[in-house]
Amino acid sequence: MKLPGQEEFEVSSACKNVPTGELDSSPGSGPSPDGPLDTKRGDLGVSKDPLLFIQLNELLGWPQALEWRETGRWVLFEEKVEVGAGRWSVPHVPTLALSSLQKLHSLLAEGLVLLDCPAQSFLELVEQVTRVESLSPELRGQLQALLLQRPQHLIQPTGTRPCQGSAHPREASYNEEALLKEQRQNPLRQKLPPGAEAAAVLAGELGFLVQPLGAFVRLRDPVVLGPLMEVPLPSRFFCLLLGPSTVGKGYHEIGRAMAVLLSDSQFQWTVRRASNLHDLLAALDAFLEEVTVLPPGLWDPTTRIAPPKCLPSQHKRLFSQLREVKGPPAPPGALAEDRHGHWLRTPSPELQRTGRLFGGLLQDVRRKASWYPSDFLDALHPQCLSAVLYIYLATVTNAITFGGLLGEATSGAQGVLESFLGTAAAGATFCLMAGQPLTILSSTGPVLVFERLLFSFSRDYSLDYLPFRLWVGIWVATFCLALVATEASVLVRYFTRFTEEGFCALISLIFIYDAVGKMLSLTSAYPIQSPGSPAYGCFCQYPDPGGNESQWTRTEPKDRDDISSMDLGLVNASLLPPTECARRGGHPRGPNCHTVPDIAFFSLLLFLTSFLLATALKHVKTSRFFPSVVRKVLGDFSSVLAMLLGCGLDSFLGLATPKLTVPSEFKPTLPGRGWLVSPFGTNPWWLSVAAALPALLLSILIFMDQQITAVILNRAEYKLRKGAGFHLDLFCVALLMLLTSVLGLPWYVSATVISLAHMDSLRRERRTCALGEPCSFLGIREQRLTGLVVFILTGTSIFLAPVLKFIPMPVLYGIFLYMGVAAMSSTQFTKRVQLLLMPAKHQPDLLLLRHVSLSRVHLFTAIQLACLGLLWIIKSTPAAIIFPLTLLGLVGVRKALERVFSPQELLWLDELMPEKERSIPEKGLEPKYSLGGDSEHSELMYQPKAPEINISVN
Amino acid sequence: MKLPGQEEFEVSSACKNVPTGELDSSPGSGPSPDGPLDTKRGDLGVSKDPLLFIQLNELLGWPQALEWRETGRWVLFEEKVEVGAGRWSVPHVPTLALSSLQKLHSLLAEGLVLLDCPAQSFLELVEQVTRVESLSPELRGQLQALLLQRPQHLIQPTGTRPCQGSAHPREASYNEEALLKEQRQNPLRQKLPPGAEAAAVLAGELGFLVQPLGAFVRLRDPVVLGPLMEVPLPSRFFCLLLGPSTVGKGYHEIGRAMAVLLSDSQFQWTVRRASNLHDLLAALDAFLEEVTVLPPGLWDPTTRIAPPKCLPSQHKRLFSQLREVKGPPAPPGALAEDRHGHWLRTPSPELQRTGRLFGGLLQDVRRKASWYPSDFLDALHPQCLSAVLYIYLATVTNAITFGGLLGEATSGAQGVLESFLGTAAAGATFCLMAGQPLTILSSTGPVLVFERLLFSFSRDYSLDYLPFRLWVGIWVATFCLALVATEASVLVRYFTRFTEEGFCALISLIFIYDAVGKMLSLTSAYPIQSPGSPAYGCFCQYPDPGGNESQWTRTEPKDRDDISSMDLGLVNASLLPPTECARRGGHPRGPNCHTVPDIAFFSLLLFLTSFLLATALKHVKTSRFFPSVVRKVLGDFSSVLAMLLGCGLDSFLGLATPKLTVPSEFKPTLPGRGWLVSPFGTNPWWLSVAAALPALLLSILIFMDQQITAVILNRAEYKLRKGAGFHLDLFCVALLMLLTSVLGLPWYVSATVISLAHMDSLRRERRTCALGEPCSFLGIREQRLTGLVVFILTGTSIFLAPVLKFIPMPVLYGIFLYMGVAAMSSTQFTKRVQLLLMPAKHQPDLLLLRHVSLSRVHLFTAIQLACLGLLWIIKSTPAAIIFPLTLLGLVGVRKALERVFSPQELLWLDELMPEKERSIPEKGLEPKYSLGGDSEHSELMYQPKAPEINISVN
Repeated sequence: MKLPGQEEFEVSSACKNVPTGELDSSPGSGPSPDGPLDTKRGDLGVSKDPLLFIQLNELLGWPQALEWRETGRWVLFEEKVEVGAGRWSVPHVPTLALSSLQKLHSLLAEGLVLLDCPAQSFLELVEQVTRVESLSPELRGQLQALLLQRPQHLIQPTGTRPCQGSAHPREASYNEEALLKEQRQNPLRQKLPPGAEAAAVLAGELGFLVQPLGAFVRLRDPVVLGPLMEVPLPSRFFCLLLGPSTVGKGYHEIGRAMAVLLSDSQFQWTVRRASNLHDLLAALDAFLEEVTVLPPGLWDPTTRIAPPKCLPSQHKRLFSQLREVKGPPAPPGALAEDRHGHWLRTPSPELQRTGRLFGGLLQDVRRKASWYPSDFLDALHPQCLSAVLYIYLATVTNAITFGGLLGEATSGAQGVLESFLGTAAAGATFCLMAGQPLTILSSTGPVLVFERLLFSFSRDYSLDYLPFRLWVGIWVATFCLALVATEASVLVRYFTRFTEEGFCALISLIFIYDAVGKMLSLTSAYPIQSPGSPAYGCFCQYPDPGGNESQWTRTEPKDRDDISSMDLGLVNASLLPPTECARRGGHPRGPNCHTVPDIAFFSLLLFLTSFLLATALKHVKTSRFFPSVVRKVLGDFSSVLAMLLGCGLDSFLGLATPKLTVPSEFKPTLPGRGWLVSPFGTNPWWLSVAAALPALLLSILIFMDQQITAVILNRAEYKLRKGAGFHLDLFCVALLMLLTSVLGLPWYVSATVISLAHMDSLRRERRTCALGEPCSFLGIREQRLTGLVVFILTGTSIFLAPVLKFIPMPVLYGIFLYMGVAAMSSTQFTKRVQLLLMPAKHQPDLLLLRHVSLSRVHLFTAIQLACLGLLWIIKSTPAAIIFPLTLLGLVGVRKALERVFSPQELLWLDELMPEKERSIPEKGLEPKYSLGGDSEHSELMYQPKAPEINISVN
Repeated sequence: MKLPGQEEFEVSSACKNVPTGELDSSPGSGPSPDGPLDTKRGDLGVSKDPLLFIQLNELLGWPQALEWRETGRWVLFEEKVEVGAGRWSVPHVPTLALSSLQKLHSLLAEGLVLLDCPAQSFLELVEQVTRVESLSPELRGQLQALLLQRPQHLIQPTGTRPCQGSAHPREASYNEEALLKEQRQNPLRQKLPPGAEAAAVLAGELGFLVQPLGAFVRLRDPVVLGPLMEVPLPSRFFCLLLGPSTVGKGYHEIGRAMAVLLSDSQFQWTVRRASNLHDLLAALDAFLEEVTVLPPGLWDPTTRIAPPKCLPSQHKRLFSQLREVKGPPAPPGALAEDRHGHWLRTPSPELQRTGRLFGGLLQDVRRKASWYPSDFLDALHPQCLSAVLYIYLATVTNAITFGGLLGEATSGAQGVLESFLGTAAAGATFCLMAGQPLTILSSTGPVLVFERLLFSFSRDYSLDYLPFRLWVGIWVATFCLALVATEASVLVRYFTRFTEEGFCALISLIFIYDAVGKMLSLTSAYPIQSPGSPAYGCFCQYPDPGGNESQWTRTEPKDRDDISSMDLGLVNASLLPPTECARRGGHPRGPNCHTVPDIAFFSLLLFLTSFLLATALKHVKTSRFFPSVVRKVLGDFSSVLAMLLGCGLDSFLGLATPKLTVPSEFKPTLPGRGWLVSPFGTNPWWLSVAAALPALLLSILIFMDQQITAVILNRAEYKLRKGAGFHLDLFCVALLMLLTSVLGLPWYVSATVISLAHMDSLRRERRTCALGEPCSFLGIREQRLTGLVVFILTGTSIFLAPVLKFIPMPVLYGIFLYMGVAAMSSTQFTKRVQLLLMPAKHQPDLLLLRHVSLSRVHLFTAIQLACLGLLWIIKSTPAAIIFPLTLLGLVGVRKALERVFSPQELLWLDELMPEKERSIPEKGLEPKYSLGGDSEHSELMYQPKAPEINISVN
C-alpha cells in the first residue's frame, strides 16, 4: 500500500523542502534536536531571520478616483487578487519580465534608500519618505495625504465571501476598531508564525509627478503600519515606487518585481544586513545572476506555474555563490557532505557491528532504557487519541482478514479468535519491550504464506499440525536468538531495492492469485445452473409414519394458502426448501436440491465491489473533493468502509453467501484443544528435531520480513530522535515466536504499512506554513502508549466475535485482492514493467531513464521478471516450502548483477551494496563527461535512495 | 461523448497553435485557401521563412581527448542528449541562465560576424571563420583541423538502440558513404519538412586559446556541411563559440543560449534579414526584452518544463513590439480584430438573414452547388478508407443500440431492422443532398425520448401508433419547411451554452435513468431466490395417455442413466427443465418453474462490465501505453469492443439472458404491416389534424437538436472551406422526416458526436512537425463520398440481423449508461457542479474562477440545477410530452439571467446573446481596473467561446 508522501517515485521523500522559515532557523544557538543539517547550513553563513510577509498595494484610478488597493501578496509564492472573482488566486511561482527588474534597478539607484530608519509610526515614515528634493512642498503634502489614505484589502473571512464581483469597497467612515478586528480575524494571520515581519510595497502611476519616485526603507525597529497591511504584523521594509503615467502596466510590474525580490531568501538575507545602496543593488544583481530565463516564443508569461514539489536547495545556491567568489576547489565539508548524504547510503550507527556476543542487543537496551520514561510522557497530546482510533480500526480489520484467511489456510487449526488474541498479546508485549515501539506487529503476508505451506506439508504427511508447529516455533526462536547474538542484523545493508522489490512482488502475486483463486473456487462450490442441464428441480418427500416409502394420499391441506405443503394431488410431497424439508423430517429429492442459485454471481459482485470501492476510496484522499478531514477519513478507512458496504449489501439481500467462521465461545478454534499446545500430540518424537529444517527457512523469512520493515521505519527522513533497535526488535520477535507457538496463536512480525500509518498519524508539524508551501515536518511523537492502547483495545474486541459472522468471505477476498494490487503497484519494479508497454516517445520523464539506456532498463526489468518467474515456479512445485531460501537467493542474484551492470547503472536502477560503496571512488559516480555536472548532482538529490516500497502486505 | 481536442475545458480548442512553420507561411502570395489569418499576420511583417533545425555540437575532453559531440537539438523545443541513457530527452521548454545570454552578447559583440558569407563548402567556411587576427598561423591550423574533425552524433535508428550507456563512438575509419546513409536514414529527417534549413552551433572550452573566439556566420546560400549535422540539411547559420578554460559549464550554456535564440521565430526573422552586427545584437536585446524570468529561490533551473499546450500568440508578440515602437493607440485592425475574434461570437455569413422567403435555402443551394463536383473528387485519398471503416462501425453500433431501445420503447412497433434500413436510407440521402455532407444522421437521444413519450401517449388513448406517427411526421415536415422558408435557422445564435448544456444534461439524465431503470426491471423479471422464501422447487408432471390425472406407476426407466425421467418411485413425473417438459407433453409444476436463477446477477455483471470496459477503453486513448495506432483503435472502438466482450462473456456461460429481438425475415418488425404505413388505420380522421400539436413540439425539438449540432460542426476552428448550409440541412431533415414517417422508420437528425468523429477522421495535417510540437491542422477533407459509402454499407448490413440476436440486452443498457455518463461529464455544467463539492482551496485554477466570484458561480450553477429539476419534474408528469417546449423555455431563462448577472459574468459563465454583443461597448468587457489588462486579454483567448459540449448522445 502507498502512504502519503510516497506518491511520486520520481520526486519523492528524498527531496528536501527548505522553506524560508526553516532554512533560517537555529544559527548560533547550537545544535537543535531537529538536526545537524541546520547547523551546517548555519556555518555557511545564513542565520535566523523572521519570516517576511510581503504585500503589494497599488495606486489605481488615476486621474479621477485615486485609491490604494492590495493586489498581491507573497511569502514564498505569489497570490494575486482575482479582480473579477473577488478572491485570492492559487499560490503560484511568480514570473517577472526582465525589463521590470531593470527598471526597478534604476528606480532604486536614483531613489531614496533609508536603511535602519528610526520611524516609529506610519506618519513618521511617510514624512521621511517624502522628504525628497525633487518634490515641491505642495506636492509633498498631496503625496503624504495620498500615502496615508487607507488602502482596500481583500480579506476573505472564512465561510462567507464577498457577494459582488470586485473586492468590496469599504466606506471611508469605517472606524478604527472594526479595521483592527478585521485585521486580527484575517485567516492569513494564523498561517504566519509568531515573530513574522511584513514588508509593504506601494506602487502606482501618479500623473502629477514629473519624474519617478523610488524609496526603499528598512526600519530599525519593525512598526505596525496601521491600516496599510491586511495583517497587523510589524513591518520591517517599506518600498515606494511611484511615477508619471507610462504605457501599459509598468508600475504594477515593477512593484511585483520588488515584492518577488523581497520574497527571495538570499535577497532578504542580504538586504537585512545591507549598509548602503550599493549592497542593495549588489543583492539585486546577485538575484539577476541566478534567475532562470524562459524564451518568449515558447512561454506565455501569463501562464501560472504551480508551486514545485521541491524547492531548489538553498544550500546549493549558497555554495554556487561561494564558488563564484572563491573559485574552485569547493570548501571542504560543504558539497562533499551533501553529495555523500544523497549519493551513498550511510549505514545508521545502530547497524555498526560491535563484535561482541549480544553486543548489539546490549547497546540497544542501553540506548532505549534512557528514553523509557519519556516514552510514556511524550504520549500526552490529543493527537495520540486520534492515532489510537485510526490504528485500532486498521489493526482490527487486519486481524479479521488475516484471521479469516488463516482459518481457511489451516482448515480451522487457527481462526479469527486466535488472530485477535495473538495480535493483542504479541502487539502489546512488543510495544512495551521493543527497540522501535512505533512498530505495529501483525500477521504479514510472507508468514501467512509460509504457514499455509507448512500446514499443507503436515497434512500431506499426516502430521499433527499444532505440535509440529510448536517445535518449528521453538527452533525459530532459537535461530533468531542466535542471529541476535551474532549481530546478524547488520547484514540488512545487503538488502537493496532489488531484493526488497522481489520479495514484495512475489508476496503480492501470491495474494492476488489466492484472492482470485478462492473467489473462483466459490463458483464451483455454488455452481451456475446453465439452461442446457438435463435435470432440474427439487421437491421434498416425506416418509409415511411407518418409515416405509410414502404413499399416494389425497389429503386436503389444512390451510389452502399454505404453499409449503401444497397438495399436488399426487404424492406426499411438498415444495419446501431443502433445509426446511429436512427439519420437518422429509428428504429433499432432485438434482437442484443441493445447488443454491445466485450465490456464485452475487459473491463475484461482492468481491468486485469491495475491491473497487477500497481502491476508489483510497484515491479520494488525493482528490480535490470534500474537505481534507472527510478525505482523510475516507482514504484512511477505505478497507473498513469497503468491508462495511459489502456486509451491508449482503445482509440487505439476505442471500446465503459463505460467511466468516467464528467460534461462538471463547475457546480455541480447533475443537478439543486447550490453550496450551501439547508438545508432541500424535507426532513421533524425532519430528521435534526435524522441525529445525522448516524452522531454518522460516527464520530466514522472519529475519528478512522483520528487518526490511525495521530499516524502512527507521529511515532518516522520519527524523526519529530516540534511535532504532534492530537487535532488540528481533529479540522480541523471537520471544513472541515462542509464546505464540506454545499457545497456538498466529506468528507475528513488524508490518510496514500499518506501522508507517502509525508514524504518519503521529507527525509533528509546524502548523504555520507559508502560502502554497507544504507544511514542514518536525518529527514523530515517539512513545509506547498509543501502540499499547491499540492492542489492549484489540484484546477487548474478542467479544466482537459474534458480530463478525456476518462478514461474507467474498468481501474478505476482495480486500485481500486490494492489498495485493496496492502493494504490487507501489513498487518501482511495476513502473519499469509498465515501461515495457510504452513507446519510448510516451514514457514519463523518469530520472532513471535520463541516465540509463532504455535497453539496459529493460534488461534489468527482464532479469527481475525472470527471477520472479523462477520463484513462482518453485512456489508451485512440492519444493514450495523452501521459498524463503530462494528469496534469500535474490541477494545473490543482485550481487551477480554487478558483473552485468556498471555501478552507475545500478546506482539509478537499484542502489549500491556496502563494499561497492567503498570501492568506487567518488569520481566513478560522475558522468563520463562533465556536461551538466551540476544538473546531474541536483537530479541525484531528487532520486530517492532509501527503500521506498512497502514490503509487508497488510 | 468527448472528442479529442475537447479534453481540457480551460485551455481548449480556442487555443491557437502557431508553430514556426505555419506562422511563416504565405507572405505575399495572396490569400491562400487556408485562412485570412495568415495574411493578416503577413501584413504585420512576417514573411515565409524555412523551418530551422538547430544542432549544438560541443567540444569535450579537453585537454586529453578532444572530440566534438552533439549534445542538443532544437526546432521549437529543446532535446538534449541523455549521456548516460544514450537517448534523446523528451522535448522541453529550454530554460537559460541570464548570465549565459549576457556572455553570448559580449562574445558576439567582440567576435566575427559574417553575414551572407559566400562559402560553398565546410572547408571554405572553416577557413573564413578562422581568419581572425588574434590567432597565430599555427593555432589557426590546429583550430581548422579540430573544426574539421567529425563530430559524434546520437542517431537512434528506429527499432534498435545503442546497447552501451554512452552515445556509441564511431571509428575514425568510418567511411563517407556509411555516414551519408546514416544521415539519410535518421528518423528525424522525416519529421522535418522539405526546404528546412539547419543551423550549427559549435561551442566548447579550448585550452590553447588565450581569449574567447566567437563567430556568427549567415551563409548566402545554405550549404550541406558534410558530417557536421546529424541530418543532411543545408545549413544557413553557423556559430562558433570557443574559449579558454572557465569554471563550470560556461561554453555549454552559451552554446545553448545561441541555439535557443536561433529557435526563436522573431530572432530568426530578424537575423535572416540583419545587415550588420548591430542588427544582430538588437535582435538579442529584443529577445531579452521579452523573456520571462523565474526567481532562483523557487525554481530549480534543472527542472524540465513540458511543452505548453498552447504556444503564445506570435501575433500578440508582434503587436506588443509594435506598441513599444509606436506607442498607443493600437494600429487599427490588429488587436481589435484579434479581440473581436475571441471575445465575441461572430455570426457566420450563412446565418445572416436575407429577408426573402426561402432566401437562405437558395443561397445554400447556390453555394453548395459550386462545390458539388469537388465533393466527390476530394475523396480520393487513402485516409478516406479508414474513415469509412471507423464511421461504419460506429454507425452500426448506434443502429443496433438505438434499434434495440426503440424496439423496447415502442413495444416492437419498430426495431433493429427499421433502424438499419432507416439509417441507411436517410443517411445516404442526406449525404447526397445536405449543406454539410460531413454530417452523420442518426437516431439521437432527444428524438428517441420523444418517440417513447409519443408511443406511451398513443397507447394510453388506444391509438393506432404508426398511422398517428405518420401524421405527426407530415406536420413536422410542414413546420420545418416553414422554418426553412422564414430563415428561422438564424435564431440559433440565441442558443448559448446555457441552453445547450441544459438540453444535454436533461437528455443525459434520461439516458442514465433509463439504463439503470431497465437494468433493475430485469431483476424483477428474473427474481432472486432468497433463502427465506417458503416454497421451492419444480418438477414435471405427465398426464396419463387418457388425458386424466397421472397415476401411480411403478415403471422402471428404460435407461437407468436417463436422469431426465428418473424414477422417483412415486409418480409419473420427472425433473426435466420446464421447456423440455412442455415439449414432451408434461406440465411443469412448482413455484420455481418460472424463475430462472442467476440471470439477475449475471445481467448486472454484464451491465457493469460493458459500462466499465467502454469507459476504461475510452481512457486508453489518452494513456501512455501502447503505440498510438493501438491506442486509437481501442479508444475509438471502445463501445464496439465492450459490446463484443459482453456478448462473448454471455455466450461463454450460455445463460438464458434476455437478448435483442431481431426479426428472422426481411419484413417490418410489427407483425402484419406492410412497408408503407396506412394513413389512418383504426384512428378517427380528426387525429390527422390533432397530430399537429405533438408535431409542433417535435419540430421544436428537431430544430434545436439539428441546429445546435450544425453550429458545432461548422465552427471556425475546423477551417471548413466549403461553407455551411443550415437552411439546406433543415430542409433535408424535413424531407427525410416525411420519408421515414411514411415507411415507419425511425426519425433522424444530425448527431454531434459521430459527425465530429467523422470530421476528426478526415483531418488534413502537416505530417512533418517539429519535435514536441503538436501537429498543425490544415483543414478537413470535405466530401460526400465517405458518408455515402458508410450508409451503403450499413444498408447491406441488414443481413447481419441473424447475428445480432446474440447480443444480450444488459450489454446494450451498459453502453447506454456509458453514453449518458460520457455526455453528462463533458459539460462545463458538470464541472461547475463538482466545484460545489470542492473546498475553495482545492479548486482547479479555472479561468472562470479567476474572473467571477465563487458565490456567483455557485448561484449560476444552482439556477441551472433548479431548471434541470423543473424539467425533470415536467418530464415525470403526464405533461411529459411538452418537454421540447420547456427546453425552449431555457432560452427565456437565459434571457432573464441578464437581469441577475452582469455581462462580464455571463461572458465567463456562458456567452453573450446577439443584442447584448452590440449593446455593450467593447470597454464594458474590460475589467474594472486595467491591472493585468494584457493578461486578461490573453486569458480570454484561451477561453473557448464556441459551444464545446456534445448535445446529441449517440
